[in-house]
Amino acid sequence: MTNFDSDEYLQKVNRYWNAANYLSVGQLFLRDNPLLKRDLVADDVKIKPIGHWGTIASQNFMYAHLNRIIKKYDLNMFYIEGSGHGGQVMVSNSYLDGSYSEIYPKIAQNETGLQRLFKQFSFPGGVASHAAPETPGSMHEGGELGYSIAHGTGAILDNPDVIAAVEIGDGEAETGPLAASWFSNKFINPIHDGAILPMLNLNGFKISNPTILSRMSDADLPKYFEGMGWKPHFVETDGNPADYARVHKAMAKTMDEIVSEIKHIQKHARENNDDTLPQWPMLVLRSPKGWTGPKFDLDGNPIAGSFRAHQVPIPVSAGQMDHKDLLVNWLKSYHPEELFNNNGSIKAEIKAIAPEGNHRMAMNPIVNGGIDPKKLAMPDPADFALKINKPGDKEAQDTEVLSNFYTEIMKRNGNSFRAFGPDETKSNKFFSMLDYGKRQWEEPIKSPNDENMAPEGRVIDS
Amino acid sequence: MTNFDSDEYLQKVNRYWNAANYLSVGQLFLRDNPLLKRDLVADDVKIKPIGHWGTIASQNFMYAHLNRIIKKYDLNMFYIEGSGHGGQVMVSNSYLDGSYSEIYPKIAQNETGLQRLFKQFSFPGGVASHAAPETPGSMHEGGELGYSIAHGTGAILDNPDVIAAVEIGDGEAETGPLAASWFSNKFINPIHDGAILPMLNLNGFKISNPTILSRMSDADLPKYFEGMGWKPHFVETDGNPADYARVHKAMAKTMDEIVSEIKHIQKHARENNDDTLPQWPMLVLRSPKGWTGPKFDLDGNPIAGSFRAHQVPIPVSAGQMDHKDLLVNWLKSYHPEELFNNNGSIKAEIKAIAPEGNHRMAMNPIVNGGIDPKKLAMPDPADFALKINKPGDKEAQDTEVLSNFYTEIMKRNGNSFRAFGPDETKSNKFFSMLDYGKRQWEEPIKSPNDENMAPEGRVIDS
Repeated sequence: MTNFDSDEYLQKVNRYWNAANYLSVGQLFLRDNPLLKRDLVADDVKIKPIGHWGTIASQNFMYAHLNRIIKKYDLNMFYIEGSGHGGQVMVSNSYLDGSYSEIYPKIAQNETGLQRLFKQFSFPGGVASHAAPETPGSMHEGGELGYSIAHGTGAILDNPDVIAAVEIGDGEAETGPLAASWFSNKFINPIHDGAILPMLNLNGFKISNPTILSRMSDADLPKYFEGMGWKPHFVETDGNPADYARVHKAMAKTMDEIVSEIKHIQKHARENNDDTLPQWPMLVLRSPKGWTGPKFDLDGNPIAGSFRAHQVPIPVSAGQMDHKDLLVNWLKSYHPEELFNNNGSIKAEIKAIAPEGNHRMAMNPIVNGGIDPKKLAMPDPADFALKINKPGDKEAQDTEVLSNFYTEIMKRNGNSFRAFGPDETKSNKFFSMLDYGKRQWEEPIKSPNDENMAPEGRVIDS
Repeated sequence: MTNFDSDEYLQKVNRYWNAANYLSVGQLFLRDNPLLKRDLVADDVKIKPIGHWGTIASQNFMYAHLNRIIKKYDLNMFYIEGSGHGGQVMVSNSYLDGSYSEIYPKIAQNETGLQRLFKQFSFPGGVASHAAPETPGSMHEGGELGYSIAHGTGAILDNPDVIAAVEIGDGEAETGPLAASWFSNKFINPIHDGAILPMLNLNGFKISNPTILSRMSDADLPKYFEGMGWKPHFVETDGNPADYARVHKAMAKTMDEIVSEIKHIQKHARENNDDTLPQWPMLVLRSPKGWTGPKFDLDGNPIAGSFRAHQVPIPVSAGQMDHKDLLVNWLKSYHPEELFNNNGSIKAEIKAIAPEGNHRMAMNPIVNGGIDPKKLAMPDPADFALKINKPGDKEAQDTEVLSNFYTEIMKRNGNSFRAFGPDETKSNKFFSMLDYGKRQWEEPIKSPNDENMAPEGRVIDS
């Protein structure tokens, strides 16, 4: 039996993290020479590196530790990248778990595959610099901020065994949609729905400004989340290598606690048929933006821990090789010789940190709509059409008629059809849908002041 | 000297509130017979009453108590109605303070004026059912929810003596823009800017659903606001007439505390040149939706205290007079004989509750852009144009050139020109504007990780 809590195991998690970081930096800068087997020359480097670095290492850190708990607890989990950019994260991790090469055989698990993986990123004819439809495991398009929690919540409704691990950028957390979507917890039924695990990536900076949440006081920040009904767990690091062993241990312990809390909530709710609103756990990871990357720019300004880590943090390109040592030293700081075999394949003990099969977050059926889609059982719309023999024959309302049709779809698709509305479902006269489906609502329900509400319902109308 | 704290004064505030409520219900239903001097007949009632009742009484309650503190402390204050509908509030209160009749002389302070006031509301050729441009004191268009705090904050920047009293519907508080805009406090400089006083109208319901905030626990709700840096003050009532005297007293005391806190924050900041982020006060008024209105519908379901109070709460119209007693009793519950003189003018002691001149919230210059607008001192754009002698002559960036122009406008208009951006001001290359103007930010600033930030700046870039 694997001991997922041993120092030895966490050292392997650390090497997995190094591998993910190495792959992510390689994608940002390199066209060739992926393992730095020879001196770096201009032709090895992209002509114009385009992409983002700021959120990468902390996301890869989360991803590595999610892999650990998936294996330890046999979880059914998928990943949402809320931070706008940093598409390398999902590419790197799906390459490490093998799924990338399964889906795209040309990006094989060898040196040629590595070279192609690096070159294609954010390159003409290649792949996007954010989580895009072609990215394995991506259900949530990066770039427009604010919808990560909403997408995660939508995906776990009616999927009681699934956990959505939702990474949220602290910049994203300032957007309107995200700030309001913390209230999603009020609509998740602990018996019939799955769970979301919000993971705030509190790295301190947006594009060129600090983030509001990162400068909130230590007293205010937990209150904010607790007030919205969450139980925040904090993991913090100054980002120095001397802290790596400690922060891996702290993260592993915290993720264990979080899984235990989610399981406890669900077990209690399901065994006692108690759908009282629970206090779901969430994670706050405070780490320096650009963690593990270059510390200072050529003028001596901080990069890591500052907004300067947001995009491409050092000026190295095919046309500007004066400071290539900065890049080489950065890449070598991950010790590629400990990560890859000589032929470019990933060392077995690192690969073993990733789950297998559909337990890999990149291969979860939920984020791969093509793997196991289900068609809705549909009634014939004609059966619901209003028969009109002559003009003025009948008085009726279009949405009431439409509502009957929708209600029948609801009846035939018990756990795969829901209606969502901005509290206009009743005013728009979808009466039959409310009568049958009820509005799902986990906060207290107070009859007779409330109507058509239930802890488990088929309408979410907020 | 007026004693603003005496029971006698608060009784007058209560009568002012009754008058505002009476005017608001009258506008919703009546075409004629505004003082109910004769029996109500079909021709007195609107053919199709259209409007909203749910938020009215609690807004009028706030408005009445804002009038009290304006007079007691000689405040420079204006009102923003965040709740989407309930346009009667600003019409009724500006009629009570006389400004409506000054601006629209046909709506005079007599029985004919009252009749016209009632008839025109939400009536063809009349006035809108929400706070609209023609409504005195309205800077913030009702209908689309979410922008009340942002509009209030924008208006008090560079206006150090002004307080924006911002009413926020608890439905509005669930929208993205509003949920994020609580963070506006992080951008208000206590020395150079004014204050906003957010007043959450926690009446429990949206259109046909309860509100999330109203069902949060007594422990969670204050944490939510405290976490975001506010100091919430709670005033709560079950809405019964037996509680009126107590809740007026509680509201007066709370508003006194709030004014005292705002004044203390500003005095401290200005005397000590200390622009540390303060904990600004805010109000939470918990009252039943449809407060002071009909308690039950014809089927015995609750109206007041339920979603049924949202719009037109009882089915009385010119074509449906069966239940006219419900309307007559409702209107008479405000004791119009104590509010109006026989000629329809408002009794002097009630009118005296409203402030005078530009201290009336409806007449504050800030919400009447036409009263005292100032033109910007503008440089000549030609002076900033890039001179190009032949194609390819120069290499330059459009936004850098534009930035020089904006920066000069900033220099010439010290307290009336600001730039706002979604943290793209630097990435869009408005460098000179950042160098000169700095980004205003009241949370801690940490050099050298931060750049171009200051507690007082001309750019808000969040």
